[in-house]
Amino acid sequence: MVKIAILGYGTVGSGVYEIIKNENFYEKALNPIGVKYILDIRDFPEHEEKEIFTKDFEQIVNDGEVYCVVETMGGLHPAYEFTKRLLMAGKNVVTSNKELVATYGPELLAIAKEKNVNYLFEASVGGGIPIIKPMCTSLTSNRIEKIVGILNGTTNFILTEMINKGKTFDEALTDAQNKGYAERNPAADVEGHDACRKLAILSSLAWGDYVNYKDIVTEGITEITTKDVMYADKLGFVIKLIGFAKKDGRIFARVAPMLVPKKYPIAGVDGVFNAIIVKGNYLGTSMFYGRGAGKFPTASAVVADVIESVRHINANKAYLEWKEAAPDYMLPASESENRYFAITDTPKDQIESLFGDILTADGENGEYAFVTGVMKERDFTEKAAVTGLTKFIRVLES
Amino acid sequence: MVKIAILGYGTVGSGVYEIIKNENFYEKALNPIGVKYILDIRDFPEHEEKEIFTKDFEQIVNDGEVYCVVETMGGLHPAYEFTKRLLMAGKNVVTSNKELVATYGPELLAIAKEKNVNYLFEASVGGGIPIIKPMCTSLTSNRIEKIVGILNGTTNFILTEMINKGKTFDEALTDAQNKGYAERNPAADVEGHDACRKLAILSSLAWGDYVNYKDIVTEGITEITTKDVMYADKLGFVIKLIGFAKKDGRIFARVAPMLVPKKYPIAGVDGVFNAIIVKGNYLGTSMFYGRGAGKFPTASAVVADVIESVRHINANKAYLEWKEAAPDYMLPASESENRYFAITDTPKDQIESLFGDILTADGENGEYAFVTGVMKERDFTEKAAVTGLTKFIRVLES
Repeated sequence: MVKIAILGYGTVGSGVYEIIKNENFYEKALNPIGVKYILDIRDFPEHEEKEIFTKDFEQIVNDGEVYCVVETMGGLHPAYEFTKRLLMAGKNVVTSNKELVATYGPELLAIAKEKNVNYLFEASVGGGIPIIKPMCTSLTSNRIEKIVGILNGTTNFILTEMINKGKTFDEALTDAQNKGYAERNPAADVEGHDACRKLAILSSLAWGDYVNYKDIVTEGITEITTKDVMYADKLGFVIKLIGFAKKDGRIFARVAPMLVPKKYPIAGVDGVFNAIIVKGNYLGTSMFYGRGAGKFPTASAVVADVIESVRHINANKAYLEWKEAAPDYMLPASESENRYFAITDTPKDQIESLFGDILTADGENGEYAFVTGVMKERDFTEKAAVTGLTKFIRVLES
Repeated sequence: MVKIAILGYGTVGSGVYEIIKNENFYEKALNPIGVKYILDIRDFPEHEEKEIFTKDFEQIVNDGEVYCVVETMGGLHPAYEFTKRLLMAGKNVVTSNKELVATYGPELLAIAKEKNVNYLFEASVGGGIPIIKPMCTSLTSNRIEKIVGILNGTTNFILTEMINKGKTFDEALTDAQNKGYAERNPAADVEGHDACRKLAILSSLAWGDYVNYKDIVTEGITEITTKDVMYADKLGFVIKLIGFAKKDGRIFARVAPMLVPKKYPIAGVDGVFNAIIVKGNYLGTSMFYGRGAGKFPTASAVVADVIESVRHINANKAYLEWKEAAPDYMLPASESENRYFAITDTPKDQIESLFGDILTADGENGEYAFVTGVMKERDFTEKAAVTGLTKFIRVLES
């Protein structure tokens, strides 16, 4: 039997334990899999296997029988120190910790390569949606041109409620909190930080150069109003929090609310679902869709990585390397090109004289929304400043 | 350099050649890859590498330097004989040939296992969409409960034209032929045989028992009329050719046109795009979407399999086995449960007395369409016969 340990018995960690206990993966893993330790700072005196709980990390890292360790603690510390020591000790590590992968990925992957072990993180992006593994295997024949994703279920739930039920942001956030989709402190989700980490991981995978999440311009959805949603609807769009990355020479990556044409498949991705579009030079557009969070969807991705690791127990591992990118690898946001949506009561002829042809939807008392043609962001913001416009939303192009 | 051969220099085979010539896969495959032979019965005197063409299969199978062979000939013979001999000779084989995999999969996979080589077929289903590999890796932690797919781009193009532009089946088929999406003899597509082979492959992968395509009840779209499309629209549905399989004790699989609620993500899959929904017991619903056919999308899936094979050049391979299923493994169609759609001018009270509560959409001159509640197909057809109804369309449930 191949022995594993689980670090952190929270939502995902306990899901991993339950799946491994309830299922027989012998045929798929070519070995039986058993959980030897669960590390948690809390006590679980009623647990059916309370004897396998430990608070002593040293016990795990020093146990030669432990082949693979699941890290579902979350957060950077001590997850980073633990993961590094486990890899150094020649143990395979499987994680759902997007923050850790996005922050220390290059170093941890390099150690894994040196030690001929796996550091696997399918569960770190898109919950249970297979996306990391397909990008490392099925899409290897393509040069990735673009990634477009709805990467955060909480914000997508909130926006869907605003769109479909006319709720305000605050009402929809409260609903999300009451349903357990949003934390009491929702900043990591609604300000886009969670989506930003995931986009950094996908971009690093796509192009092999480490995309630091700190270099990704990130806007959340806290400024989106029911009025934005209503005008967008009139113009044929829905508003989604989009993680967008492309490479055309330099890499450009941004997390921000965007107007998505209703006819795009991603426009119909509602509620807590996630979707990731990958555009390859040969494949064209493909989309991966499913539950981006939740105990069992996420745990099932962790367990699939454990099976993968156990299956190749004596084989050389398929390494990933994220190289240090050149200092100017990222295109500045001001150089990016988009169409832009804004609401104003400045007379249309003034707006047209600034921006050229615009698409408009009229409101009341001279207020209206408009969408510009494609222009550089620097040009748009300069022109918008002339009319006192400071708030705008970008439009997603196909 | 790892040497490969390509059998069949048609659309997909030439795409494979071009991708391998144009790209550098050294980092991904850990070896350079070169094409040593192309087998084709035709001559290509103008080809830039005309010297690598051969008509002699023996040259390829007897060349110890050929590590991996791409079979893009299509059809059963001689593709079957060639593949078998190549695997027996210890060569890895990568194919896009769904007919061959669906027909001889169990035997060919068993030979591959015995010889410690790969028989890989990502390109056989969904063109360039990663689906085979994710089912073999990322989804291994799940028991697959259900597969729902739009598996044939030709029929989806035809139905999309009928739905969006009000064309008749014949008009839409002619368009598809003129655009090169449909063959001059379109039977394999429009009668559902192509989708049936793909569903057989997906079902075999999902449950490990070989699902023989001959055991899959298959209906095409040739009987779908603009009137069906119009009434379906009024009732909130679109009509799609759906490959459907589930396992609940026994396996049930069918290819048939179905009414799909417009709110389902798969309802928005238009034109030549394909989508495959996989429902796992832990993951819930996930969907894979993209170009289901075409030279470069399909060739890119073949090349990804070649890279996979080359990357693990000295490793034990990840085997697939499709076991012989029990004689009664398949649930008879008459036992399947669905809601049903039909068009009639039989008075509503008679229809309601037969089927109970129905959903209706009125037409002209007393004609209307109705949708029943869920019932066994045998019950529906018996009751329908009473009123002389012979044509009906099933409704896809979530």
